[in-house]
Amino acid sequence: MDEVRRINRELVHKGAVVDFYTDTMEFANGHTAKWDYIEHKGAAAVVAVTDEGKILMVRQYRNALERYTLEIPAGSLDRVGEPKIDCAFRELEEETGFRAGTLEPLLMLNTTVAFCNELIGIFVAKDLIPSRQHLDEDEFVDVYAYELEELLDMIYSQKITDGKTVAALLAYKVKYAS
Amino acid sequence: MDEVRRINRELVHKGAVVDFYTDTMEFANGHTAKWDYIEHKGAAAVVAVTDEGKILMVRQYRNALERYTLEIPAGSLDRVGEPKIDCAFRELEEETGFRAGTLEPLLMLNTTVAFCNELIGIFVAKDLIPSRQHLDEDEFVDVYAYELEELLDMIYSQKITDGKTVAALLAYKVKYAS
Repeated sequence: MDEVRRINRELVHKGAVVDFYTDTMEFANGHTAKWDYIEHKGAAAVVAVTDEGKILMVRQYRNALERYTLEIPAGSLDRVGEPKIDCAFRELEEETGFRAGTLEPLLMLNTTVAFCNELIGIFVAKDLIPSRQHLDEDEFVDVYAYELEELLDMIYSQKITDGKTVAALLAYKVKYAS
Repeated sequence: MDEVRRINRELVHKGAVVDFYTDTMEFANGHTAKWDYIEHKGAAAVVAVTDEGKILMVRQYRNALERYTLEIPAGSLDRVGEPKIDCAFRELEEETGFRAGTLEPLLMLNTTVAFCNELIGIFVAKDLIPSRQHLDEDEFVDVYAYELEELLDMIYSQKITDGKTVAALLAYKVKYAS
């Protein structure tokens, strides 16, 4: 950490889910530069495996991409420091209507290391128990169950591009199904 | 796209690499809400495989995480619309000092679909040709070569958490090495 160090951090804008800061960085040669920093509370996501070995996926419209995506169930922490496994359990039930009988850690992912601190805890859920979907007012999500191999084909044909979903499904494949 | 639609987008701040917008969304029930939107030019990243089958990795300090990370070589597009394969070729050479003899597409990843449009094109580079590392003034990167299996262990033990790196190495494993 001698090559570059942060000498200032200034809040530019508090957003709905992320806050934007401008960092002033100083380099070993004495030059300085302004870098972007986006602060995020953190999140959790779930590879939910049915008793038949299928994976639960959610389809929703993503404003940032201006299209629908197919993703594993996920959501942001309620607050900084909420245990990620609690968030995973809650978001799985809210989005899919299934409770996890078991939740095992699979991966920790930093989504965008160049400018954001977001960290997603990814879990594998099994022994699913039917419950009830209860979405937020501004959430509209359809739930589907897919064979893992079908999802892998969708990754390599670029039909699934969501980073956490790609990483999680491949990690599940390599750890449990190869 | 009937459940939710964007009725306004306002630029809040132009950053060094990303721009922050506030979107006004309208829901089917007539309610509205402010959502964050971060605009990014796009990026490319490379799984660079040596003739011995090792993978080139870069170690660098990440201000957003306040720690060093181990990642595959990557960088942002020079401009919106730059072909991602050109960016991949350039960033590989700049960061590692190796030119790609061949570059094959592997994945397309949206890093953070909830609030950012960033799309990373990930390629596999082979037939590497020694050249010269030439970093930007504010880049400090060390290069290492690892066995794939060693990197997979680092993913599952949470020593590697960078999303694009996790997805790319697992995708390479499943497609080429399992």
